[in-house]
Order: sequence, then structure tokens, then C-alpha cells
Amino acid sequence: MQRTSFAEMHCSIGQSLERVGEWWTPLIVRDIHLGLHRFDDIAENLGISRNLLTRRLDGLIRDGIVERQAYQERPPRHEYHLTEAGRELVVVLMALMAWGDKWATPVGGPPVSLVHHDCGAGFTPQVCCSECGQPVTAANVTVLPGPGAAYGPGTKVLARRGGIAPEQVRQ
Amino acid sequence: MQRTSFAEMHCSIGQSLERVGEWWTPLIVRDIHLGLHRFDDIAENLGISRNLLTRRLDGLIRDGIVERQAYQERPPRHEYHLTEAGRELVVVLMALMAWGDKWATPVGGPPVSLVHHDCGAGFTPQVCCSECGQPVTAANVTVLPGPGAAYGPGTKVLARRGGIAPEQVRQ
Repeated sequence: MQRTSFAEMHCSIGQSLERVGEWWTPLIVRDIHLGLHRFDDIAENLGISRNLLTRRLDGLIRDGIVERQAYQERPPRHEYHLTEAGRELVVVLMALMAWGDKWATPVGGPPVSLVHHDCGAGFTPQVCCSECGQPVTAANVTVLPGPGAAYGPGTKVLARRGGIAPEQVRQ
Repeated sequence: MQRTSFAEMHCSIGQSLERVGEWWTPLIVRDIHLGLHRFDDIAENLGISRNLLTRRLDGLIRDGIVERQAYQERPPRHEYHLTEAGRELVVVLMALMAWGDKWATPVGGPPVSLVHHDCGAGFTPQVCCSECGQPVTAANVTVLPGPGAAYGPGTKVLARRGGIAPEQVRQ
């Protein structure tokens, strides 16, 4: 079954999911960040089929999240590394991990602990305000239409309620 | 095709994805947070089939992320609201949105702007250290085995490298 694409959505969550929202993809990014750079290691670690891993890695490379680096010329062999976009995605995955630690704790407790180099402390990732540095919550943030707000797939009812007219649809 | 379950993984990213990693699910959570509480509104906004939306909402309710609230008795009608776990997931989606704004910007620019009530500023969500408050990056965090670390599906190679023996597998 062909899944619906979010590529046309005027929503950065939709755009992010279009790139990293497929089943397995976030775990592949996790593995590369944790030091598994070779195809065979990632395949074994996740227990994912080689076909599917090839497809997911190709998508991540196309979307600029992962890059191939040659480590041997004859025969040619490659490793997979995160790009800057991939490394910035890792911190979002840390926030998702903290949510899972709290709300879907695996048997035995949190499987990993994080230590922040800058302060040396074991820590929990928190989503904070870039301006005042304090943690944000769903309740203390207002969502307003931004410059790219538009009436369209994935934001039909929301855009109408936000006062965006259908003629503002961007092509 | 039946997708592989991440339920047995000793990884809180895997556990989170098991609950919210299916295609459409994060956008349903987004819509409810943004004030769409009725089935028909969410279905129209996302352009998702009613069957699929029913299945996704049932999963979110089962996993404690969404709850049904009656707003009419005869005939019975329900609204969908986020639980505390759901509201805490919203801030992770805000961090994912910020990633998309930067690395996968929709045509026209960021579709929404966020304002933090506590300081009154328009802001970008950042993932920060709970102890010192500073932003974390992939490079300034060390990942160590936690109390629930184990050799098993999804962490086979990683656990081996981290010095966790197969006999430590938890059932």
C-alpha cells in the first residue's frame, strides 16, 4: 500500500515526518549516532531486512540526513555518517527518548543515561525556549500562523480557523 | 504487510515509536493540540480516511496519549483530548517542527510561529540539559548504558559493544 505523502503539507512536522517518519528510520539515525557506521552492523543490530535498510538509507541520503563515506577503495566499501541535519535530528530523538523513558519505560528502567559534557551532569533532555531558556509546555505556548501558513492538505480546517483564505493556497 | 513491532526493544526511542511512530499519528496529536477535538474536523483537516483515523485514535487511546470525552448524551458524541502524556509529547513535536523549519522548510517559510507565555517572546524550541539549562548537541552528550540496558532486539550490536552480556537479556 502506497502511503500518503506529507510533502505537500504546509506544516514542518509533516515535512519532518516525510523525511524521518517512516518505520525504522529514527532507529537507523540513532544507530549511526551511536557509532554503527557499517551496513552489516546496523542490519544486525536492528534485525531489519537488508532490502528495507537499503531503501531507508537511500531515503536518508537523498534527504541530506545521512552521507556515504568511502573507507576502502578495492573493493569499494562505504560507511554511513550523519550530516549536520542528521546530528541536529539526534537531539530531537533525545527528547523523544526522554518521553519514552517517562511514559513508556522499557522493562528494567531507562536503557540509556545521558551525560552533558558542558556541565558534566547526568541529565534529562527538555524542550526549552530559545529566548528565556525555560522549559516549554503544551499549555504555555501559543501557536500563531507563520509566514508559510496556508490552506491546503493537512491544514485545511486549521487554516480556515486561523483566518487564512483558500485563495492563499501556495502552489 | 504487518510492520515489525518495536515493543520488545530495550530502547525508549523504540518504545516511543511503537506508540506514536505510525504514519499520521504525530499529526493527529498535533491537530488535537491545536484545538480540533472532533473526529470529523480531524478527518477533514488531514484528509485521512475515516477507517484509518479510527484505528489511529484507538491506538492513541489504548496507549494513554488521547482520551475520549462525552460532549453530548443523546445521541452519544465524543471529543478527543490529550492526556498528560499527550501534552508532553506535544513539546517533542515542537522540537521536531523546529528541525523541519530549518532543514525542510515548507514553501513560503515556517507555517507557524510559537510564542512562549512565560517570557512573551517568539521562540524556537531547543533541546536543553535539565541540569544546566544549556542547549545540547549530538556532539556534547555521552550516551551510557542505563539501568534497563540489555542485549536484545534493536540493541544487539550496541549492547555487545557496551559490554552487556547476552545472559543479561531481560524477559
